[in-house]
Amino acid sequence: MLTHIVLLKWNDKVTAECIAAITENFAKLPAVIPEIKSYEFGPDAGVIKNGADYALVAKFNNAEELKTYIKHQAHQDFMKHYSMPYIESFQSAQFEL
Amino acid sequence: MLTHIVLLKWNDKVTAECIAAITENFAKLPAVIPEIKSYEFGPDAGVIKNGADYALVAKFNNAEELKTYIKHQAHQDFMKHYSMPYIESFQSAQFEL
Repeated sequence: MLTHIVLLKWNDKVTAECIAAITENFAKLPAVIPEIKSYEFGPDAGVIKNGADYALVAKFNNAEELKTYIKHQAHQDFMKHYSMPYIESFQSAQFEL
Repeated sequence: MLTHIVLLKWNDKVTAECIAAITENFAKLPAVIPEIKSYEFGPDAGVIKNGADYALVAKFNNAEELKTYIKHQAHQDFMKHYSMPYIESFQSAQFEL
């Protein structure tokens, strides 16, 4: 199983409505991208201050299926319309269990 | 349940032996810190290039138990001896499910 992690920082164009739309539309992706085996995400709860505003933890069977997800039209559309316009920076990593 | 995510970037002092020791010693923490409900970690598999070298995904019942983990002597000792000397930067976030 490959765990894919993304931490996002928003730019100053983001609003509470944008973040709600991001969460709502993230939630739609597992139903249309079968390669997603587990998908957890949400705005930073702010317990510790270290800069990230939003986090995603997704699991895939392997690297090929992660790449299929990345390139999937539904994911590309999500990024184009909901997340990319509001991203100042992001960092990701993947690890195998 | 509160998910705590950390992405790390190593400095130029890190070696393969250091990273192996970090993974070995991360693995010892759940046995001594009962607040840890789930603990997954590992070096970046490099499927997508975005900068992070190592990732941790940990779950806790709530923010108080996350704070107990952060302050726990075994975690503090782990950070002091194994991870902090090799960290160039890190970013974390927490989200509630």
